[in-house]
Amino acid sequence: MPRWEQGSEERLTAAALQLFREQGFENTSVVEIARRARVTNRTFFRYFCDKREVLFAHADDLRAALVEGVGRASGVADPVRMVVGVLAQHDWEGLAPRRALRERQAVIAANPELLERDLIKQHAMALEFADVLARRGVDGDLAGVAARVGVQVFLTAYLRWLDAEEGSEDLVAICDELLSALRATVLAG
Amino acid sequence: MPRWEQGSEERLTAAALQLFREQGFENTSVVEIARRARVTNRTFFRYFCDKREVLFAHADDLRAALVEGVGRASGVADPVRMVVGVLAQHDWEGLAPRRALRERQAVIAANPELLERDLIKQHAMALEFADVLARRGVDGDLAGVAARVGVQVFLTAYLRWLDAEEGSEDLVAICDELLSALRATVLAG
Repeated sequence: MPRWEQGSEERLTAAALQLFREQGFENTSVVEIARRARVTNRTFFRYFCDKREVLFAHADDLRAALVEGVGRASGVADPVRMVVGVLAQHDWEGLAPRRALRERQAVIAANPELLERDLIKQHAMALEFADVLARRGVDGDLAGVAARVGVQVFLTAYLRWLDAEEGSEDLVAICDELLSALRATVLAG
Repeated sequence: MPRWEQGSEERLTAAALQLFREQGFENTSVVEIARRARVTNRTFFRYFCDKREVLFAHADDLRAALVEGVGRASGVADPVRMVVGVLAQHDWEGLAPRRALRERQAVIAANPELLERDLIKQHAMALEFADVLARRGVDGDLAGVAARVGVQVFLTAYLRWLDAEEGSEDLVAICDELLSALRATVLAG
């Protein structure tokens, strides 16, 4: 990639998030995003196939990495905790600053079409986790429920973590707290 | 409703499910559904606004009833079990025979657009459950995670129940079994 293009993807992502928040996802065009990022339309299409892709870039790589994590993490005898651990220990702030992740989530939550896409990706990920757990010897039904429950525990923690100030609240600690709450007051009967 | 129309909604639903399974949801038209059900197109539109609606008819009433159930069920101190119980005790076979529910689920699973719609409805239901649990005094984070986890435990049980023979497997019993497995081998650490 030529030197003068460095940072284009980050600038495009930041510009898109700004515009989506300011005027809504539906009302924002690729032309506006490229203009705000000070790149050509052609540069936009070098990184993304459409404006929705800005929000879901690298999602397949991310999912593959997480599925691989579930495939090799220890502690498969407690599969909920293991799934939650793999998700919580991922370097989310390596993807983007927490502020950008928070803006992304707000844009998705405000648009039913994007929310559906996000939910179907979470669903597909839970199904893949369940397959991996089953291959690792977890009983079929338990594999399914552990994968689904683990993903939901993580998502609850992730949303709280997104809402917190940069540098405060540790995702692993929030997950541990939620798992303890589940164990103590829930499922105790 | 005139006497000669009795059973039209059921016939339309059965015809639609048959056609969706035979030739795919995308390839089926309202005209074909009405013809297979031996009613006029006008009769179709008296019951459903489009072919997708056949699969999600009465979904809002169902959700309202379940949310109300979570609002008044006892056992709020163990909110996961309570949510699972409200869902499991619902009279699902009062909606349609298990065979029809199974066909409906297969059509949804085979079509990404329908799956997204189904997932967004589950998501909205979990959020409503969380609000109700919080109003009933469950701590905010725990309310969120209990609602999400409860819905996922139920869905795992529901899919197993759908796959079983008519009359075999009790949904409440499957849910109890999954909750016991979660308690015993998961979250035990």
